[in-house]
Amino acid sequence: MEFVPDNVDVDELERRKALYGPLAEAVRELVDATIRSEVDDEVIREVHAEVAAATSKLRARQIDGAFGMRLTAAGESIAWGNAGVGLRNAIAPPLVIESDDSGRHWTDVTLGAAYEGPPGMVHGGICALVLDHLLGVTASADARRYTGTLTLRYLRATPLGPLRAEARVVGVDGRKATVRGTLSDSAGVTVEAEGIFISRR
Amino acid sequence: MEFVPDNVDVDELERRKALYGPLAEAVRELVDATIRSEVDDEVIREVHAEVAAATSKLRARQIDGAFGMRLTAAGESIAWGNAGVGLRNAIAPPLVIESDDSGRHWTDVTLGAAYEGPPGMVHGGICALVLDHLLGVTASADARRYTGTLTLRYLRATPLGPLRAEARVVGVDGRKATVRGTLSDSAGVTVEAEGIFISRR
Repeated sequence: MEFVPDNVDVDELERRKALYGPLAEAVRELVDATIRSEVDDEVIREVHAEVAAATSKLRARQIDGAFGMRLTAAGESIAWGNAGVGLRNAIAPPLVIESDDSGRHWTDVTLGAAYEGPPGMVHGGICALVLDHLLGVTASADARRYTGTLTLRYLRATPLGPLRAEARVVGVDGRKATVRGTLSDSAGVTVEAEGIFISRR
Repeated sequence: MEFVPDNVDVDELERRKALYGPLAEAVRELVDATIRSEVDDEVIREVHAEVAAATSKLRARQIDGAFGMRLTAAGESIAWGNAGVGLRNAIAPPLVIESDDSGRHWTDVTLGAAYEGPPGMVHGGICALVLDHLLGVTASADARRYTGTLTLRYLRATPLGPLRAEARVVGVDGRKATVRGTLSDSAGVTVEAEGIFISRR
């Protein structure tokens, strides 16, 4: 585990968010359109060439390997490559996690065509991704903890569209925190989760 | 659950794979480059505009909603929008699942920057996505089954790079199948999974 210090100030951080966030959002739209398009073959090939050219431009200068985690001077972590919350990662919805003083954590997220499993439904593994990430953040409110075990109970299929996930710590025993959470659509809970999260020594 | 018949023959199916597969692969590269690029701001803005324009071209004609699941005349299912295995889904690695006569199912997959959780490591929720999908396919060898419960034990962090997941049915009781699997890197198992998968009545 390495956190790379990145001594950006608040203004510079906001500037970078405003630069990279919209690019990733545009790539998310492209991912969706790549699944749903019905245009003629020659347009598909044209777009393919344009996407490859755009990628080459971006790769003209790039970091080695993955983004990792960087820390600002103020101690804010920048996990922009993260598959759950990464501002620059088009795979990430990205989740925006909120919390209140009672320890409840939640995220409201709308999942579209790119997150499909059974027809019209969210992939069970994507439900797991959302819950794993939310429960992990919930478990790490006092100390950074990592997933030890995660148990998911799929009560019914989760439809694509607007969803809410919620979680709360239900017990802490030394390095271990037990967290419970749910994923819900407008009609109620679709998936229940319980995780045990462990801090490094 | 709806499976839409799509009476394409084998040649037409291959033609479509050769058209859409490379486009999605190019979009996967773009997702990776969007995370890792360090080019100047004006190039980022240029690429943003190009990606938006490419998306507009694709959206000139597109299906409503998600891709769903289509069936060829020969009964092969086409799940090209699927978040685990979708040929047209840039979120999907995509997984390619193999099996042998003994009932063992496995997939070899290389996960890069877009699948990161902790620095340099695969996101725990992405491990869950790979295992949920593989175990679900394994459970559905005789009848289509859906995830009931899934339990994941994270033995250690899974590094980004080449990985193998394996699974096998360990018991069937009426509509329920119990499946066990593992995710491994070259040094051994990183995540163990057990799932109960249930067929619809």
